[in-house]
Amino acid sequence: MGDYKKAIELHEKHGGKIEVNGLVPLDTREDLSLAYSPGVAGPCIDIAEDPERVWDVTMKGRTVAVVTDGSAVLGLGDIGPHAALPVMEGKCALFKKFAGVDAVPLCLDTQDTQEIVETVARIAPAYGGINLEDIAAPRCFEIEEKLREKLDIPVMHDDQHGTAVVTLAGLINALTLRETDREDARVVIVGSGAAGVAIAKILVAYDITDIVMCDSKGIISAEREDLNPSKKALLSFTNKDNISGTLEDAVKERNIFIGVSQPGLLSRALIATMQPDPIIFAMANPEPEILPEKAYEAGALVVATGRSDYPNQINNVLAFPGIFKGALRARAQFREEVFIRAAEALAASVEEINREHIIPDPFDVRVPEALQEVVYQTLKK
Amino acid sequence: MGDYKKAIELHEKHGGKIEVNGLVPLDTREDLSLAYSPGVAGPCIDIAEDPERVWDVTMKGRTVAVVTDGSAVLGLGDIGPHAALPVMEGKCALFKKFAGVDAVPLCLDTQDTQEIVETVARIAPAYGGINLEDIAAPRCFEIEEKLREKLDIPVMHDDQHGTAVVTLAGLINALTLRETDREDARVVIVGSGAAGVAIAKILVAYDITDIVMCDSKGIISAEREDLNPSKKALLSFTNKDNISGTLEDAVKERNIFIGVSQPGLLSRALIATMQPDPIIFAMANPEPEILPEKAYEAGALVVATGRSDYPNQINNVLAFPGIFKGALRARAQFREEVFIRAAEALAASVEEINREHIIPDPFDVRVPEALQEVVYQTLKK
Repeated sequence: MGDYKKAIELHEKHGGKIEVNGLVPLDTREDLSLAYSPGVAGPCIDIAEDPERVWDVTMKGRTVAVVTDGSAVLGLGDIGPHAALPVMEGKCALFKKFAGVDAVPLCLDTQDTQEIVETVARIAPAYGGINLEDIAAPRCFEIEEKLREKLDIPVMHDDQHGTAVVTLAGLINALTLRETDREDARVVIVGSGAAGVAIAKILVAYDITDIVMCDSKGIISAEREDLNPSKKALLSFTNKDNISGTLEDAVKERNIFIGVSQPGLLSRALIATMQPDPIIFAMANPEPEILPEKAYEAGALVVATGRSDYPNQINNVLAFPGIFKGALRARAQFREEVFIRAAEALAASVEEINREHIIPDPFDVRVPEALQEVVYQTLKK
Repeated sequence: MGDYKKAIELHEKHGGKIEVNGLVPLDTREDLSLAYSPGVAGPCIDIAEDPERVWDVTMKGRTVAVVTDGSAVLGLGDIGPHAALPVMEGKCALFKKFAGVDAVPLCLDTQDTQEIVETVARIAPAYGGINLEDIAAPRCFEIEEKLREKLDIPVMHDDQHGTAVVTLAGLINALTLRETDREDARVVIVGSGAAGVAIAKILVAYDITDIVMCDSKGIISAEREDLNPSKKALLSFTNKDNISGTLEDAVKERNIFIGVSQPGLLSRALIATMQPDPIIFAMANPEPEILPEKAYEAGALVVATGRSDYPNQINNVLAFPGIFKGALRARAQFREEVFIRAAEALAASVEEINREHIIPDPFDVRVPEALQEVVYQTLKK
């Protein structure tokens, strides 16, 4: 908890982590008369006459709202909108640092799906995009879907698509390393929350279709009678052979393990039941499903985690800043194809793939630029 | 419209007028681990355990939301949430420039009173105060009242209270100049929108009680059968003698004219029917009810307008930055007394009162500091 103390001190220093600054001079009456009354009527009338102009003469064209209901924050769970604010401020700071995108936190005092959708739709005019964050499954799926129907700006739940993009990017390079084609990939995904579901979807869209998913009760199969509608929906594109059973049954003979679940859930013994040279993505935070050194001991070919103190960190900061920057530039909504193209661009930005380098460093400045370009080009097609 | 062209160019330069910046370093893995995952869990847990800590470890303690529905923007009227954004960004830039308060625009895609109240209440957690802006009367009154009931942070409709504070401040000094006691003040207020109603209320709270109000149909009196509920409510504290009639009837024998209405509405001939040495506040924007030179020709003792190119500018920027800064410091809701004390402090900050100097210059740096102190002390009592 020593780091928590240091982190709290950092957050107390200024009171949080972001500030709002003016971009135009306000030092003279002339300045005031241009930036505020009466001159500001100029851009107002401009927009009233041509609504598209709001993208040019206001912050909208470069600003994203980072929206949470505080229901699934980090590994802490449902801590509410106030306690979620440090994470949202951090996200906003990362948006600026890594892609020059301005971002504003919105912490909602409701966890009702319909109310969240209504509220976000009502506050949308000032923003060029909506980044949904740390909203619990399954309501995150419906919220994102309904907002994409209602709004004409890009909407993305980062816990889904950001994680899915970076995971797929790492997996593309891991498959190259293992010399495994997509059709030979045999995937088990453990964890069926926002991230797990989104990873399954992007893999299928990328033609990796042999996927078995697990939740805390075991394999998600047609035999299960306890599945909520969003888990039932997984059966239409996962578990083609309809196997059922425990985590042990799911892992056996697979060559790719993707964990977005619980610390310590994967043992060396379990890895030994997989195909030779398995690919292990143990992304539970802050403690992974298995520590990399143990996974390598058990025969893993390549291991990725969510941690910054090991190689191959699956870190969303590699994806969301560049993706939103490209979407703001295109002034267009996301389509599934965007995320595939972004993952490919992210994978391609690793120049020499090896066991300790299947994904770029988070500080690689080429990455957000490459992603914004591919997202822009894809959306402009 | 030459100034509009220049203003539009200024707004196109960066795309709007405000940006969001990080306050903590994000250059190393160590930086990321403190500002974001995993260290950010520290302040999150801190707030989850003690909700008051959100004021210390996040932006909340220094940040205001500037909220509009785009229904009464400048003199332009109901231009909607997108076209209102340049004004809201300007307001946010002024908050930072004049009081170091961070502010974020929220332009709402609804003009329904209940929906506005719900939406603002739901987005409140990240903010330490709510500045309502350019919302049409009469719904602005109900929205402010309901939000004050629902929320525990300061809520103020600036078109009401900001204008009322600066107007009262100027009037206090104008009365000194005219050597008129409050009980001898005979006020006519022309315009019964948000500003007019708020000015009437603050004057009564300040013990200036002889007030007649007009709208576009004439004097607001008990004889009128076309009054909406908010105008009817004015009869309980204005027009004590229940006079009725036209604007001409209202102005006659008054010694104070306060206009928040239409350009050119006050003539020299009309001023001539007032008591000698009348006080004229002609605050219609951008063109006042009468130009100062004409009002002086007609015998005015002192003239104030909303314009920066004449002396005695009644400019809200004198009030809202310091008032919110004090309220954020006190972490308390507004009470009516706050606005009276702020007006007195604003009046007192004019060192030598004369006809061309009844109100401080907007760039007088002592003003926001004096206001924040008096607001803080009043709320802490």
